[in-house]
Amino acid sequence: MRLAELSERSGISTATIKYYLREGLLPPGRRISTTQAEYDDPHLRRLRLIRALTQVGRLPVATVREVLSNVDDSSLDQHSRIGSAVWALPHGSQPAPEGQDEQDADLTAQALLEELGWGYSHAAGSASPAYRMLVRAIAALRRLGYPAATENLLPYARAAGQVATTDLELIAGYDDAEEQIEAAVACTVLYEPVLLSLRRLAEAEESNRRFGTKS
Amino acid sequence: MRLAELSERSGISTATIKYYLREGLLPPGRRISTTQAEYDDPHLRRLRLIRALTQVGRLPVATVREVLSNVDDSSLDQHSRIGSAVWALPHGSQPAPEGQDEQDADLTAQALLEELGWGYSHAAGSASPAYRMLVRAIAALRRLGYPAATENLLPYARAAGQVATTDLELIAGYDDAEEQIEAAVACTVLYEPVLLSLRRLAEAEESNRRFGTKS
Repeated sequence: MRLAELSERSGISTATIKYYLREGLLPPGRRISTTQAEYDDPHLRRLRLIRALTQVGRLPVATVREVLSNVDDSSLDQHSRIGSAVWALPHGSQPAPEGQDEQDADLTAQALLEELGWGYSHAAGSASPAYRMLVRAIAALRRLGYPAATENLLPYARAAGQVATTDLELIAGYDDAEEQIEAAVACTVLYEPVLLSLRRLAEAEESNRRFGTKS
Repeated sequence: MRLAELSERSGISTATIKYYLREGLLPPGRRISTTQAEYDDPHLRRLRLIRALTQVGRLPVATVREVLSNVDDSSLDQHSRIGSAVWALPHGSQPAPEGQDEQDADLTAQALLEELGWGYSHAAGSASPAYRMLVRAIAALRRLGYPAATENLLPYARAAGQVATTDLELIAGYDDAEEQIEAAVACTVLYEPVLLSLRRLAEAEESNRRFGTKS
């Protein structure tokens, strides 16, 4: 398809698509004349992923470029490509804990992963940005005097495990490896607000059940 | 306790505490002389909550003030105070969908709540910011061509339901009503990064199981 059709089918203006091409977020089309290029379905998919990252994930262009370069790194196996693309996503902006606080939170996180049998994450340890995000979150809970022992965190981890099974089910449902990696990144970002909004709705249900005056 | 001790026990500088007092985030202490005031445990708890909202939740001071004024509204019953305080928290910054997109996403969200038997949320409908956040998330998934039918969302909702049960268990464990409301707000904010980081760790486990080359 030509640029105009790519724009129409993606709902993204030609000016924005040209910007993504210039910034290297979208690979160039197949040139068919000095002024025209031909685009295909992978371009359309890539545009969707860029939109997911910028509009929902609120990622700056430089971060999108890093995520996409990991998505496209065909020297890696499937699992590592998904992993490195997700690792390049932002992982919150909390300050890292220091000294004893950091060590305590790290011990709790390690104990939690061991209890869960999450051997892959346990081995990756502090190299993983999701792990460091968890350590920061545990340290914040503890610093502010809220419960953050392994047994407090386990129910959250078990729920997260179920969500991840659903995520990977969805991802594995895509036909080719390329599409699976793109879906892994997009769904990680797009289902976060789904999960957080549903938690708040569920909290309101539970709160009403426990504390509500209306039956 | 005096201001110096409040600062030491909370780990917050006296300058910052004075700023919170001036901004009306922290209620004034009991004046014991023209230059000194006496503070007590509720002040310490309130400081922790302010820290949770500003440092982890990244809320601007005006939003913190709104959340706290709902926490303190004793004209409401327990459930309504928790609800209105949580409603005042930010609910993401995605643009609201329009027209047909909005209607489609709304229908899906309504069907989901009905399927779940979440009658309270169903009745509150679009008045609830968490519900509007869900509708925006569904609309984004759909616009970008990712699955967002009721059956795709159900596993996320069930996991969210389990998380909420854990949340309310924790909240109900606090002795007095005041503490419960503060814990509800703090835990809603503080456990979000716990949940999101654990989901990413669990995704890595699942991805390794399905796609990994190492056994």
